[in-house]
Amino acid sequence: MCFKEFDEKTKYFMSEALLEAQKAYDRGETPIGAVVVCNGEIVGRGYNKVETSNNPLNHAEMVAIEEACDKLGRWRLFDCEIYVTMEPCVMCAGAIVNSRIKKIYIGARHLKNHVVDKHNEFKREIYDDNKVIFEFGIMGEECSNILNEFFKKRRSEKK
Amino acid sequence: MCFKEFDEKTKYFMSEALLEAQKAYDRGETPIGAVVVCNGEIVGRGYNKVETSNNPLNHAEMVAIEEACDKLGRWRLFDCEIYVTMEPCVMCAGAIVNSRIKKIYIGARHLKNHVVDKHNEFKREIYDDNKVIFEFGIMGEECSNILNEFFKKRRSEKK
Repeated sequence: MCFKEFDEKTKYFMSEALLEAQKAYDRGETPIGAVVVCNGEIVGRGYNKVETSNNPLNHAEMVAIEEACDKLGRWRLFDCEIYVTMEPCVMCAGAIVNSRIKKIYIGARHLKNHVVDKHNEFKREIYDDNKVIFEFGIMGEECSNILNEFFKKRRSEKK
Repeated sequence: MCFKEFDEKTKYFMSEALLEAQKAYDRGETPIGAVVVCNGEIVGRGYNKVETSNNPLNHAEMVAIEEACDKLGRWRLFDCEIYVTMEPCVMCAGAIVNSRIKKIYIGARHLKNHVVDKHNEFKREIYDDNKVIFEFGIMGEECSNILNEFFKKRRSEKK
């Protein structure tokens, strides 16, 4: 199997997204994290906090996008990239498109629901006029591990 | 052409969503409004305020869902319905699924991007396991009119 090599900068930003995922883990939330980067600087950070905030919209990507808009004082993030530890859900995919972000770096692929097609583009049904670029598998093992560990722990607690 | 008849209650809630759309119109935002209803009572209201809040996530449905969760103190809205003046975008469709809302009443159909297929279900690509019920065309003319008027006004201002 052939893995693409990623540069240090890309791995650094994904490791920051992983730190966010760890915050979710520590609070008993499904551990997913995201950072928004503008001109080489992190302008938004977020982790999944649906349960603790009682808000189904508070996925990592949404929180990070909101923080980036606050910081930059605008809602069009055409010059930003987003790093997220797991392939986004439909809501977050739509939010990324709506916010005009042009590049998404993804750690782990979602096991079931895929928003990205085999041509590495958003599925046509999700967005007709899609020009978002994807990079998959940045620190994919680490991003999967934290999720697997979380679900394993949860299963053992349920027993 | 055959139009389905809607009862007074359905039309009342859509007229409340239209009042929200009017608030967006008055603030120079694309006029879309939504209300979330639980046990016959409005528990969340929202209008599109992307421009005025500098936040691409602040579509009418998102604002209404967030308010409903706040009011009910929970994020699973399985016993709620949402009334929205225009067919939701992908982000909002995903948010509705994530929040477990089971029924969507829609005023106007989106001219271009459709999240609903010809079987009146969410497109499979948008959600694999979809059990959301749709009703289309409630006060469809009024819901379209406010949008048409908004874009007509904007075009004339640009000239």
